[in-house]
Amino acid sequence: MPSYKAPTRDMKFVMQEVLGAGDQLAAMPFYKDNDTADFDLLSQVIDEAARFVETEIQPLNQIGDKEGCVRDEQGNVKTPTGFKAAYDKFRAAGWTALDADPEYGGQGMPHTVSIAMNEMICSANVAWGMYPGLSHGAYSALHAVGSDELKKLYLPHIVDGSWTGTMCLTEPHAGTDLGIIRTKAQDNGDGTYAITGTKIFISAGEHDMAENIVHLVLARLEGSPAGTKGISLFLVPKFIPNADGSLGERNGVVCGSLEHKMGIHGNATAVLNFDGARGWLVGEVNKGMNHMFIMMNAARLGTGMQGLGLGEVAYQNALAYAKDRLQMRKEPRVSGEEADPIIAHPDVRRMLLTGKAYTEAGRALALWLALSIDTEHHHPDEAKRKEAGDMVALLTPIAKAFMTDNGFNVAVQSQQVFGGHGYIQEWGMEQFVRDARIGQIYEGTNGIQSLDLLGRKVLMDGGKKLQKLAGTLQEFAEENEGDEHIGDYVNQLGKAAQQLGSITMVVGQKAMSGAEGADEVNAAAVDYLRFFGHVVYGYLWARMAKIAHDKIDAGADKDGFYLAKTQTAKFYFTKLFPETKALAATIKAGNEPLAVDDKAVFGWEHA
Amino acid sequence: MPSYKAPTRDMKFVMQEVLGAGDQLAAMPFYKDNDTADFDLLSQVIDEAARFVETEIQPLNQIGDKEGCVRDEQGNVKTPTGFKAAYDKFRAAGWTALDADPEYGGQGMPHTVSIAMNEMICSANVAWGMYPGLSHGAYSALHAVGSDELKKLYLPHIVDGSWTGTMCLTEPHAGTDLGIIRTKAQDNGDGTYAITGTKIFISAGEHDMAENIVHLVLARLEGSPAGTKGISLFLVPKFIPNADGSLGERNGVVCGSLEHKMGIHGNATAVLNFDGARGWLVGEVNKGMNHMFIMMNAARLGTGMQGLGLGEVAYQNALAYAKDRLQMRKEPRVSGEEADPIIAHPDVRRMLLTGKAYTEAGRALALWLALSIDTEHHHPDEAKRKEAGDMVALLTPIAKAFMTDNGFNVAVQSQQVFGGHGYIQEWGMEQFVRDARIGQIYEGTNGIQSLDLLGRKVLMDGGKKLQKLAGTLQEFAEENEGDEHIGDYVNQLGKAAQQLGSITMVVGQKAMSGAEGADEVNAAAVDYLRFFGHVVYGYLWARMAKIAHDKIDAGADKDGFYLAKTQTAKFYFTKLFPETKALAATIKAGNEPLAVDDKAVFGWEHA
Repeated sequence: MPSYKAPTRDMKFVMQEVLGAGDQLAAMPFYKDNDTADFDLLSQVIDEAARFVETEIQPLNQIGDKEGCVRDEQGNVKTPTGFKAAYDKFRAAGWTALDADPEYGGQGMPHTVSIAMNEMICSANVAWGMYPGLSHGAYSALHAVGSDELKKLYLPHIVDGSWTGTMCLTEPHAGTDLGIIRTKAQDNGDGTYAITGTKIFISAGEHDMAENIVHLVLARLEGSPAGTKGISLFLVPKFIPNADGSLGERNGVVCGSLEHKMGIHGNATAVLNFDGARGWLVGEVNKGMNHMFIMMNAARLGTGMQGLGLGEVAYQNALAYAKDRLQMRKEPRVSGEEADPIIAHPDVRRMLLTGKAYTEAGRALALWLALSIDTEHHHPDEAKRKEAGDMVALLTPIAKAFMTDNGFNVAVQSQQVFGGHGYIQEWGMEQFVRDARIGQIYEGTNGIQSLDLLGRKVLMDGGKKLQKLAGTLQEFAEENEGDEHIGDYVNQLGKAAQQLGSITMVVGQKAMSGAEGADEVNAAAVDYLRFFGHVVYGYLWARMAKIAHDKIDAGADKDGFYLAKTQTAKFYFTKLFPETKALAATIKAGNEPLAVDDKAVFGWEHA
Repeated sequence: MPSYKAPTRDMKFVMQEVLGAGDQLAAMPFYKDNDTADFDLLSQVIDEAARFVETEIQPLNQIGDKEGCVRDEQGNVKTPTGFKAAYDKFRAAGWTALDADPEYGGQGMPHTVSIAMNEMICSANVAWGMYPGLSHGAYSALHAVGSDELKKLYLPHIVDGSWTGTMCLTEPHAGTDLGIIRTKAQDNGDGTYAITGTKIFISAGEHDMAENIVHLVLARLEGSPAGTKGISLFLVPKFIPNADGSLGERNGVVCGSLEHKMGIHGNATAVLNFDGARGWLVGEVNKGMNHMFIMMNAARLGTGMQGLGLGEVAYQNALAYAKDRLQMRKEPRVSGEEADPIIAHPDVRRMLLTGKAYTEAGRALALWLALSIDTEHHHPDEAKRKEAGDMVALLTPIAKAFMTDNGFNVAVQSQQVFGGHGYIQEWGMEQFVRDARIGQIYEGTNGIQSLDLLGRKVLMDGGKKLQKLAGTLQEFAEENEGDEHIGDYVNQLGKAAQQLGSITMVVGQKAMSGAEGADEVNAAAVDYLRFFGHVVYGYLWARMAKIAHDKIDAGADKDGFYLAKTQTAKFYFTKLFPETKALAATIKAGNEPLAVDDKAVFGWEHA
């Protein structure tokens, strides 16, 4: 059975030593006033979260996979054994309220600390974590754009976890393309709307863990324009609450079936049928897409966290197995047994270090983004808020796609360390692979993330956000170009950053060349995001290596933590970062090799 | 539900137009005399095989995954619904005898044609295909080194499919490291041996599809030396046959349990307990490892075929979905619907072309190898036999590892084309991913294949086989370097081949530098194999492109088949081949970044 120990030491290193989170949060009145900025407090919260997740959530992971969720004929759904009890404890301990607004019963903790707990939950039991996770998404949307009435009625229950939330976007014919959804809303004339249609792939869409489920539903109000500009956001509760918050009548939304999936079996992925269900408008009419986008950054980072968390736990278990499994003899021998631990063999070390390098950089990116989100929302200086917001917008698609791609690949490589045993369910490694696979697909496929990055965040913006990040990188490079330890990394990084700039220029120029310009962006996007991801990870590894070398030079590396950082940084720059060389070439090749003859190559005939 | 149409046109293109198989086989008396060299005949066999596989085998694939195999308390195993009936038809139609020796009831067909059928079976239902597949492996070993007595008694039954075979190598503590197996053999003094021990991961180890199961078992004869030099190969039948071939008493080998696996659920992966089971020596005492290696090439190519077959079927289904699924609007529009087929979007084309380029090159490699195996066994000229055998030895680890890695990646990318639907079991794409994953692990992990290639096939051989291949490449390059169509590919290929040579030199020199030399080989091996794989695929794509361009120039491309070849070649060289740039850098980085501090980085303390 797999095990898990939360990497709290590394989390604290990134928060405090790399990001200086304590000081930064103290500068934000919201956290200062709530007494939630103190790093010692955050540190204690992380330790307590680790204890809870390791003992209450992680042991349910294989059970959840094996049992899955079961729907009865009335559309009720039973979650796997232990899921509800763990959720009750989670609620009771106040974890659902962790970073929520104190006005609605929240603890007002920074996103920086909740994202750390988020990582732990994703490592421990991602299917379980999606129940409170989706709830948090619904909380964010409602908090951002809901009316005071709706907020007062719903948010306290979502914050205390007695009610959960969902996000209902996808329909059978409309996934990426939300502009063509058909679910309709009719004005009842009493301030409510009748919602009718079918939504699919609704995570945590129906279950027995909470008293009520609050669905946030995209639908088209009668008479609205076609496309994304005619979509509104509605709140549709499973049970319609009375004014005092007690539960009233059952609403016309029913779980029609549950999907049979490759993984995340413990989470109920529901088909929801809305049959004139009573709904309330959230935000403005026809602004549904914009409202969803408000919380998209958080949801996408949340998906990235699944890649990070699953990569981490897969790595941890591969590491343990590699120390334990004796196979073949290494020269010179490292054990007195008939064979040596496989961790002694360089190729096994390569697989392990791949996991370590990607997860530690991913953690740094996630915490950096979380602190930026805190800054965006709560910094007293508007310019700082704007700057942080820009960085969040730019880096979020990278966090989502790069972290889930790397997480999946790390899970696969960690499974490989186990040899044949990795393919056997009892060891749990194959579950990590199956569970990690969905992160690359949902919440906008990684292809869509790439288009968001290159098309929207870089090109439509005239490269302004990119230039700001480039400025930060260049500043760092100038400060450290001659550094005896990290000079070489900075050098590589500088070249890659320059290349990123010139690649962006080339694609940008092509993009403006008429109809085929869009094709050029589409053709380059995935490789572009991966290139960009390496530049970001390279920057973070260089920064972490610098801090670690300083500690070592000062004689402050008591347990080898900093030595490990410097050596993992070296591995990253010599064994993973060179992927940029291939990516530069494939991006440069552009759309032309993809513009093949449709009939000859694909047997596809069209007008 | 997924569909499958065997790519017979492409198979024939490779066989006849690329490899000239008809003429080459006609030069081998064995096939000439058996009347099995004629290309028209082979072509008919391929068409008939396609019909059989598409209609009888493929429809059972999802059933097999869903039902799996069930073991009762006596150790009997029931295969999924329909598996036995399809196997009976398969036998009745003579497919188990296809490339077997006519002396034992075989049809004496070339390996070149059986490998084509093999690909089809792997596409259609890899779990089902492993029953006859393992049987074929046992046939090969017994045919190569068994005594006449054993061969006469067993082979006719294996050839007609009434009995199947297995290969029993792995034990709980010994996978890669067969030198430490503990299963023991005691001489009964009557020409038989008592075999005792536990074997795990035995594919097709117990089932209800055949009357008898013939286990080929690695065991240590009492008094034999330690390590691989003390291992012998034994034949242990489930039922001990009487002299006339009728079934006698039940032997002491029982299926103790079945593994629960990530995929290939339809195949019974058995734990087999041998409790003084009666066995017969196959080949010579203490030569068991050598005997196994005789058939290892075929078994490893067979595993590579799983990667190829699964990549192909995943690609086919992604292609069909991409034409059908309407999502987002392309400029200019290509359909009158509210959205356009996703195949119009360049990033989707990129994923599809990745599948097409890898599978078509893999097919060319597989058929080239199969024809080389035929040549190795049956060419009248000893020098030709030796040359072909060298090429088979060199390319087999590439066929196994590169084809299964690419097959898995293609399955994953094809699943990605489906968006959220790819994660849902009913669509069948996630099964392809789960089924493809094992190919990278068993029959020697891909890490082990890489060591076999770099350590054994290249360096221990002093680079002789590599030089022979390099000579072939150079000859091709010199002939075509100025070619208007493929000159650029040849140029890229030439550079990469040169680089492969220099990389080999560098690693070879490091390898000789004492104990750490082995680490350098181990550190480089996986990236080296991938680099080598691209050189081989590049060579094959350039050859195929040349033939296709010649046809086009001659006005002989009636249906666009050759145009598709040229455009896929271009995609390969511009979008996939550049991976070599990254690999060259990571190989060059050597073992140093992996030689990290064990305690600091891995928390591993040792002597």
